Amino acid sequence: MKLHRVGIVGLGLIGGSIGLDLQQMGYEVCGLVHRKTTEKRAKERGLAQVISTEVNVIENCSIIILALPLSQLVNPEQSLVDALPRNAVVTDVGSVKKPIIDIWEKLHPNFVASHPMTGTIETGVEAGKNKLFNGRTWITTPTNRTQLEALETIKQVATDLGSQWVTTDPETHDQAVALISHLPVFVSAALLQTAGKEEINKSITLAKRIASSGFKDTTRVGGGNPDLGMGMAMHNKSALLNAMKSYRSSFDKLEAIIRKDEWGKLKEELLETQESRPDFL
Amino acid sequence: MKLHRVGIVGLGLIGGSIGLDLQQMGYEVCGLVHRKTTEKRAKERGLAQVISTEVNVIENCSIIILALPLSQLVNPEQSLVDALPRNAVVTDVGSVKKPIIDIWEKLHPNFVASHPMTGTIETGVEAGKNKLFNGRTWITTPTNRTQLEALETIKQVATDLGSQWVTTDPETHDQAVALISHLPVFVSAALLQTAGKEEINKSITLAKRIASSGFKDTTRVGGGNPDLGMGMAMHNKSALLNAMKSYRSSFDKLEAIIRKDEWGKLKEELLETQESRPDFL
Repeated sequence: MKLHRVGIVGLGLIGGSIGLDLQQMGYEVCGLVHRKTTEKRAKERGLAQVISTEVNVIENCSIIILALPLSQLVNPEQSLVDALPRNAVVTDVGSVKKPIIDIWEKLHPNFVASHPMTGTIETGVEAGKNKLFNGRTWITTPTNRTQLEALETIKQVATDLGSQWVTTDPETHDQAVALISHLPVFVSAALLQTAGKEEINKSITLAKRIASSGFKDTTRVGGGNPDLGMGMAMHNKSALLNAMKSYRSSFDKLEAIIRKDEWGKLKEELLETQESRPDFL
Repeated sequence: MKLHRVGIVGLGLIGGSIGLDLQQMGYEVCGLVHRKTTEKRAKERGLAQVISTEVNVIENCSIIILALPLSQLVNPEQSLVDALPRNAVVTDVGSVKKPIIDIWEKLHPNFVASHPMTGTIETGVEAGKNKLFNGRTWITTPTNRTQLEALETIKQVATDLGSQWVTTDPETHDQAVALISHLPVFVSAALLQTAGKEEINKSITLAKRIASSGFKDTTRVGGGNPDLGMGMAMHNKSALLNAMKSYRSSFDKLEAIIRKDEWGKLKEELLETQESRPDFL
């Protein structure tokens, strides 16, 4: 079987990691990047065989992987869209699926929506690494417009990279991501804000001394890159608002239990959360 | 200067660690434990020179450290209270100060309220380790009934253990602990509950596959020991409810910003949380 020539648009954490692994498997990999400085560094790191800032670098590829940030996936440059070979299979790596599908199913006949889970947060041309996807989940959210053959092609790439291929519908995906990945950012950010309020925190100096691993862990994602949090909220707004509403009802319930001194009930609730957590790890 | 004979009540993480370090410095250390099995293991580990389940093991000590869980500190056994030498200096290690002070200032004339910060969560007779307090904060919350000489005695022990001695009032301490240590438990528990709700999470199986380090970190303290969470809520109830109220107003504000598509404002908020977090670490 002849392996495909793969075009990767963007050589950050995801694009760069895909490029490294696919080359080792014998795929031919072409990388399209935005900046000359990125091109130079990506070449030094060997993230693809051919790397350029010119869109025609992907013209003979049969698979295109759009490894771009969410904001660029939902608002793609026209020059990129024009450069995509019409007979190639095109996939993305975005963490939200519905808005991307709404746009890309109109832009390309062989679009396959996908979302590889990486679990790391580094970004940029230095971030790509070998075996990033090995043993991880790669989700696809096909619609009735998705071509079966195109779907099989992307599945092959994902499984070649060692991922487990999981199929679901876009709404279910976006709601799950809202709960598991986007809601924690705002839950965590609100905690940081509260700790910094002078009207309740009589001694912020003391609070800073008291803060230890519990506070550190619980606030990590809320103290992260603001653009990531913004992108989640903008592009997964309705699922996130649903998740926030549901979260508030859980929080209010715990508060009411404490207010009413229902300690037996509180213990039951905390036992349940203790027991449920390992399932998510 | 003759070093004190120190009695430690409870040889778990805190008591055991204090015992190990103080012996190395030449202090004489007597340990009082609850169970015969603990006595045996504590002796094998050398957590104190003399260890017993009989309360008279502490009868000749000039310093007593009550290294007990919160629930036992606020509801001490009468046999323990009776066994405390009246001329000894007595301190505790509880993470909430007001309810402990209310009880212990009536029970002993030389009581000094204190709270060493450890930042680890292991418990039991195996948990004690050397240098646990080195470079960490040891808070005291004296009142107008606290004896200055007694305060100086405990300060000496804390600084001998390498801790930084910090003085504040009980209310400020309890509010800071509520914000930094207790609130995160319930913020995090509510997140776990939300992720497990079938009415919003159409595919819990998928959610479990998606969960990665962000979810893991944000839910760690909410999935911890239910008794710890219960103790925080019971013994620091009013400060915790204040903190929860303030938290909800932060959370609601973020939700309103998202609902109204105020992306510029959201970015400002997330920039602020990003900038504030390093101060707490």
